[in-house]
Amino acid sequence: MFREMFENVRSKSPLIHNITNYVTVNDCANIVIACGASPIMADDKEEVADITSICNGLNINIGTLNSRTIESMLIAGKKANELGHPVVFDPVGVGASKLRTETAFRLLDEVKFTVIRGNISEIKTLAIGSANTHGVDAGLGDRISEDNLDDVINLAKSFAEKTEAVIVITGVIDIVADCRKAYCIRNGHSMMSSVTGTGCQLSAMTAAFVTANPDNVLEAAAAAVSAMGYAGEIAYGRMNDLDGNSSYRNYVIDAIFNMTPEMLEKGAKYEVR
Amino acid sequence: MFREMFENVRSKSPLIHNITNYVTVNDCANIVIACGASPIMADDKEEVADITSICNGLNINIGTLNSRTIESMLIAGKKANELGHPVVFDPVGVGASKLRTETAFRLLDEVKFTVIRGNISEIKTLAIGSANTHGVDAGLGDRISEDNLDDVINLAKSFAEKTEAVIVITGVIDIVADCRKAYCIRNGHSMMSSVTGTGCQLSAMTAAFVTANPDNVLEAAAAAVSAMGYAGEIAYGRMNDLDGNSSYRNYVIDAIFNMTPEMLEKGAKYEVR
Amino acid sequence: MFREMFENVRSKSPLIHNITNYVTVNDCANIVIACGASPIMADDKEEVADITSICNGLNINIGTLNSRTIESMLIAGKKANELGHPVVFDPVGVGASKLRTETAFRLLDEVKFTVIRGNISEIKTLAIGSANTHGVDAGLGDRISEDNLDDVINLAKSFAEKTEAVIVITGVIDIVADCRKAYCIRNGHSMMSSVTGTGCQLSAMTAAFVTANPDNVLEAAAAAVSAMGYAGEIAYGRMNDLDGNSSYRNYVIDAIFNMTPEMLEKGAKYEVR
Repeated sequence: MFREMFENVRSKSPLIHNITNYVTVNDCANIVIACGASPIMADDKEEVADITSICNGLNINIGTLNSRTIESMLIAGKKANELGHPVVFDPVGVGASKLRTETAFRLLDEVKFTVIRGNISEIKTLAIGSANTHGVDAGLGDRISEDNLDDVINLAKSFAEKTEAVIVITGVIDIVADCRKAYCIRNGHSMMSSVTGTGCQLSAMTAAFVTANPDNVLEAAAAAVSAMGYAGEIAYGRMNDLDGNSSYRNYVIDAIFNMTPEMLEKGAKYEVR
Repeated sequence: MFREMFENVRSKSPLIHNITNYVTVNDCANIVIACGASPIMADDKEEVADITSICNGLNINIGTLNSRTIESMLIAGKKANELGHPVVFDPVGVGASKLRTETAFRLLDEVKFTVIRGNISEIKTLAIGSANTHGVDAGLGDRISEDNLDDVINLAKSFAEKTEAVIVITGVIDIVADCRKAYCIRNGHSMMSSVTGTGCQLSAMTAAFVTANPDNVLEAAAAAVSAMGYAGEIAYGRMNDLDGNSSYRNYVIDAIFNMTPEMLEKGAKYEVR
Repeated sequence: MFREMFENVRSKSPLIHNITNYVTVNDCANIVIACGASPIMADDKEEVADITSICNGLNINIGTLNSRTIESMLIAGKKANELGHPVVFDPVGVGASKLRTETAFRLLDEVKFTVIRGNISEIKTLAIGSANTHGVDAGLGDRISEDNLDDVINLAKSFAEKTEAVIVITGVIDIVADCRKAYCIRNGHSMMSSVTGTGCQLSAMTAAFVTANPDNVLEAAAAAVSAMGYAGEIAYGRMNDLDGNSSYRNYVIDAIFNMTPEMLEKGAKYEVR
């Protein structure tokens, strides 16, 4: 199943409009290319409706939001809804400031999202209004483990029901859920948390996967999450003693570039609950 | 001839003011350093005239333009014209939105450019008002091939005549033309299109080359284009099975860093038409 | 002594708020992670006070300042002062434009800095009002050498006295001084000047070091400077014939990631004057 999802990205090469932060934007563009899609970054309110219209999907990331780009996110999100384009939302650091929290809720209110992807603290902030956020990282008290896995799955399913979006919660175990079904994905490597923006990259790539598979949003998002985690494993496998987080960053994107749909099918580790 | 052009960049080390997009800006800065020049990035309207004044050349790229930076581009462009500094224009994604198209034409109208560099769709949009743009990439129907090469050369020459700028059209074959003479450059590798911003990088490096060679703008631009393509070949040659577009991105810049003027002279593949 | 400074960064993992330029921001984030701390980038005036409040330290860099972010720098700086958080200031390119110079002096006037880090031209501009700035690089006439070392140390000490900040001047020899004592650090490699943003990265990392060692600001800043230089040496040592400034950029961050406090203690080369 993941194989087909990935094949569709490679064969359809969807054009993805990204309104994203300036910290990780280059990596987001390169990973979108690596998976087989094409990125465009544009964030001015005078052009985002045009850009969204020529694209096939939209990715909104509030990592370095400002008053100018918040307006653009709303315009682009509504335009994408109007056109029936998939929209991914990455609520980076929601809970860390009033502006982020208010903006995230405003976006949830005014834009219908296809996928919402965050760490557990970000999703808890959106779903239940509070969490143990540690800046843009999940707080220690929130970390996903085997012990709280059922609770996290329930949280994801109920938030999916409320938003009608597929919810992706990334962490030691990744959860991808709609209101009925959850993929628990056990790909990935702890080294990924030593690179800035692996979450942002995943959101951009998820936009490519769901745009290429509009009738299988849950599976497409799960495939993207599994591909990212598997890339993290492959990348770790090629590290030498002198390599650190910067070389690893390149290796993760390289691994997506070289991954075939067949490799993903074999490398994916998940169960459905 | 290309050797001398490159030697002048290395010996004069011109200071290049870049008003460019936030997606590929770090790579632009590093490739400007790699070729032997010095980059400064500055885009606030209150300082761009000052920054342009202390620099030797200017590079304007509309990849992530906004209302604030558009004004800065106009101010800096006019200041550079006033000072007689070379100005390179990279009309990223022109045709993809009304804002980009209008801004590009406004810049063409108010600023005299030394070099205009884009893909075939971007240059067609500027020269004849329409093209098959695919976001920030050239549309399939526009791709340069041996079959349409004469037409593309004629387009470049006639747009060069109209704008009094050297026109650079990059693709499978690269064209660098003034109104009389065109270099058809056959360096490069298809892998380059899998990295975001190789075009942006080339524009920044072209600014360095023409600034160091103000009396040989056509040859200097051709040397920059050939150097970039040749770097793409060298970079591809060192890839291993696990390397993908992210490592390749580093290798291209590395190849410019290690390229000598003599290597460029020998590695350049072009004909003049 | 440097060992303990570094151990504290790794064990406390301080959260660092960065208001920095969009050229080198990704490398700044990755090096902050590499040394053991956590970065957040946020620059909107509506949220910087909130973000600074949840962080432990602040890093302000004017590399691509604009009217919007200047206001944010002032708000965040004052908030950090109010909370007693360490604040590092990187006056990138001060002297290159009226806006940069005025902004830098306004920041010095309204915010109390813990550390001010720049090249010799930037620090001279702040300390005595003029210098031989070459864009964002130190002017040739300003370069630190054995011949002018005593003068540079005196400049640093007297500017430290005036600002009550630790002054870091980076160059061939790095000076880290308060009003009484100066570390002359002889780590580093000339290759570091071929990568954009090694100074920005050092400022971000210095914020992490002084935040983790609030009672030893001078030693903590010296440890950060020595770690960066030592990373530059290690990175150079692993370069192969095809590697250039882009691979080297990765290797420097990698070297910080893999550096142990013990390695730093042994690798540090400095004298106290």
